[in-house]
Amino acid sequence: MDNQVIARCQALAECTEEPGFTTRTFLSEPMHEVHARLGRWMEQAGMAVRIDSAGNLRGVYAAARESAPRFFVGSHLDTVPRAGAFDGILGVVMGVALVEALGGRRLPFHLEVVGFSEEEGVRFGVPFIGSRAFIGDPVKDTCIAEAIRAFGLDPAQITDARYPGETLGYLEFHIEQGPVLEHLDVPLGIVETIVGQSRLEVRFDGHANHAGTTPMHLRRDALAGAAEWIAAVEREARAVKGLMATVGSLGVEPGAVNVVAGSARASLDVRHPDDGYRKSAVERLLGCAAQIADRRGLTVHSELRLDQPAVALDLDLVQMLERAASAAGCAPHRMSSGAGHDAMIVAPHMPAAMLFLRSPGGISHHPSESVLPEDVAAALAVGARFLDELEAAHG
Amino acid sequence: MDNQVIARCQALAECTEEPGFTTRTFLSEPMHEVHARLGRWMEQAGMAVRIDSAGNLRGVYAAARESAPRFFVGSHLDTVPRAGAFDGILGVVMGVALVEALGGRRLPFHLEVVGFSEEEGVRFGVPFIGSRAFIGDPVKDTCIAEAIRAFGLDPAQITDARYPGETLGYLEFHIEQGPVLEHLDVPLGIVETIVGQSRLEVRFDGHANHAGTTPMHLRRDALAGAAEWIAAVEREARAVKGLMATVGSLGVEPGAVNVVAGSARASLDVRHPDDGYRKSAVERLLGCAAQIADRRGLTVHSELRLDQPAVALDLDLVQMLERAASAAGCAPHRMSSGAGHDAMIVAPHMPAAMLFLRSPGGISHHPSESVLPEDVAAALAVGARFLDELEAAHG
Repeated sequence: MDNQVIARCQALAECTEEPGFTTRTFLSEPMHEVHARLGRWMEQAGMAVRIDSAGNLRGVYAAARESAPRFFVGSHLDTVPRAGAFDGILGVVMGVALVEALGGRRLPFHLEVVGFSEEEGVRFGVPFIGSRAFIGDPVKDTCIAEAIRAFGLDPAQITDARYPGETLGYLEFHIEQGPVLEHLDVPLGIVETIVGQSRLEVRFDGHANHAGTTPMHLRRDALAGAAEWIAAVEREARAVKGLMATVGSLGVEPGAVNVVAGSARASLDVRHPDDGYRKSAVERLLGCAAQIADRRGLTVHSELRLDQPAVALDLDLVQMLERAASAAGCAPHRMSSGAGHDAMIVAPHMPAAMLFLRSPGGISHHPSESVLPEDVAAALAVGARFLDELEAAHG
Repeated sequence: MDNQVIARCQALAECTEEPGFTTRTFLSEPMHEVHARLGRWMEQAGMAVRIDSAGNLRGVYAAARESAPRFFVGSHLDTVPRAGAFDGILGVVMGVALVEALGGRRLPFHLEVVGFSEEEGVRFGVPFIGSRAFIGDPVKDTCIAEAIRAFGLDPAQITDARYPGETLGYLEFHIEQGPVLEHLDVPLGIVETIVGQSRLEVRFDGHANHAGTTPMHLRRDALAGAAEWIAAVEREARAVKGLMATVGSLGVEPGAVNVVAGSARASLDVRHPDDGYRKSAVERLLGCAAQIADRRGLTVHSELRLDQPAVALDLDLVQMLERAASAAGCAPHRMSSGAGHDAMIVAPHMPAAMLFLRSPGGISHHPSESVLPEDVAAALAVGARFLDELEAAHG
C-alpha cells in the first residue's frame, strides 16, 4: 500500500506542462489527466466522483446513512514550477488509500477526499483558489473565471464547491518540507499551529562615496549598516524559541566594487506560532535597525508588506491523531508548520488537523523531493486508527 | 587669477557630448573645442601648442636656452559621464595660469603643460590612454586607433606623444575628490603616495531553504555569513591606520523574501599606501571569511581581480612643495591619494608630485563638484613658489 502511494504520486508527476519536469499550475491542461487518473482510483475504491466548479476533485465514500455528517481528507493537486512528486498530491493519494484500506467497511460519516485545484499561487499570483471556494469565499477574478471556463467548467456555479451540511472536520497529510523531523529521527509530525507571518521591506540610506578617497570614519555606508542589522536579526531569532527571522534578499545601490553603498534594501520575513511574540520581535528588530542607523548617520524606513495571523488547528483532532499514533506504535512529534497550507484556510470553518511526513534532506519544491515508504506506511496506519477513533466518537 | 581659473573650468565644462551635463570621453567631438580654447589661452601666454597623436594637448613655455631640461605640469581633459567641472581639467588650467603668472619671465627649464586625452577609462573601458602614450607605453587597441584616426590624428605616429629628452619631473594639481582636507579645515594636500589596491570577489555558498520550515539552527544561510564578514571587513579597516576596505556590492541568490539565501557574492576593495599592509589585510580578511564559512557550514571562494601596487611620489618634489607651501603661508597636509591619477603612470618614469585642492563636501564625479576660489589662489601661490624653488635648484 505504501509503495503504491509513492508509485501513484510518481505517476501523477508525469502530468506536466513542461516535459522533463513536474510543473502543473491551476487548471492547466495536464490537470485533466490528474483528475482522470485519481477519479478512476476513487471510483475503484467505491467513491462517487465529481469535479466542482473551482476545479477541485471530490470523491465521496458514502456513510451507511445518507443523513450522516461528513469528514474531509485532502490537499492540493497543483505544483510549483519544476516541483517534486509529493508536495500536495501525496495528501490526496493518501486519502484514496485510506478509503481503499477500509475494504468496503462503511463508516458513520461520509468520508470525502478533496483534491484542491490550487494552493501554490503560481498561475495568477493568488494562492488557495481551491480551498477558498471550498469554504465559500471564492477568489473573485476575471482571469481565474476565464481559466475555469477554458477548463470546461462554469465559474457561475462556483458555490457548488462549498462544503455541504454537517462536517466533523478536515485532515491533511503533507510532507514537512523542512528538516525538523529528519533531524529528530521521527517519521511523523502532528501540526498544532500554522505560524503567523510578517513580511517587511527595510531600507537603509546613507551616502554613496568613492571607496578610495573616503576614510572609514567619514563614511555613511548603507551596506555596512544593513550587514550589522542582518546579524542582529539572526541573533534575535536564535534567542527566541520558535521564532524564525530571515533576510533573504538584499539590494545594494549603486552596487559597484569601488563605491561605498548609498542604500541597501533588505527583505524581512518573521514567523512565530504566537502572534504576540511575532509582533514584538518585529518591533524589536525595527528598533534595532533605527539604533544602528542612528549611530551610523543613516536613515531607515520600513514598510509592512504582509501581516498574517497564526492559525491554531483543532485540539481535539490533534489529540485524536496523537492517540492514533500511539496505537499505531508511533511517537509523533507535535510541531508548528512554518509554511501555509490548505488546512490554514479550512481551519476557521471546521475542526482541522495536519499530519506531516518527514522530508528526507528537508528538500521540497525541487525534483529531488522525496518521502520514505516506511513513513507512508506509518502515516497510513495512523490515518486508519484515526478513522477508528472518529468512528468510535461519532458511532 | 583664481576666479579666472574657475571661470575657465566652467567654460570648458560646456564642451560636452550630452547637453545639460558635462560628459566628455576620449577624443569625442567636444574635445576639439577643448583643445581650441585651451590652445588659445596657451598661445596667449607665449606657449608653443601642439596636439600629439594620442590626442594629448601640449603647450611648451620655452626656457631661455633651447638645450634646457623640461618640467611638466598636467592632468586630464576627459570626464566621467555627467561629471563636475574640475576633475582633471583644473590641473591643466592651473598649468596655464602658472605660465601666465610668470609674466614673460623665462626659466632655466622648458615648462610644458600637458592635457592628457584620457584618464577615466569610460569610452573603451581602458584608463590612462593619454598618460600611457606620454610615458612611451601606449595602449594597443584597434578601437582606440580608430578613434584617434576619426579625430583627425594618425595613430601610427603615437610615439610623438612620448616625453622627450631630459626631464626634471611632473606636477599634477587635482581636486581631492574626498572629504579629508575639508574635515581637517586645510585647503591643500601634498600627496606622498598613491595607494595600492586589491579588488576581489568573495563568494559564500550555503543552502537555499524555505524561510518558514527551516529552523534557525539547521540553516546554512549564505547572506547571514556574508553579513558577519562585512562587519569584520569594516572592523579591520577601522583598526589599521590608513587602511580602507569596502564591500560595495553584494548579490544574493535566489534573493526571495521567503527563501534562506543559498549564495552571496560580495565585492572587496582594499587600499593602503603600504603594499605589505594591504596584502596582509587581504589575507586576514580572507582568513576571517574562511573561519565564518567553516563555523556556519558554508563554503567560501575568492578571486583576485586586481592587485595594483602603491606608487610613491618623489620625496624631493614633495619636500619642495612643502617648502613652497610654507613660503606661501600655507600649512598643507601630507596625505595619500586613495584614487588613481595620471601621476601614478608618470611616477615610475620621472620625479612626480601631486597637490590636492580641498573638495567641498568631498563631492566629485557629480555636477555639484566644486572648488573654492581661495584654495585655487593658495594652490597658484604654492605653484609659483614651487617653480621658484625648482629654478633655484636648476638655475
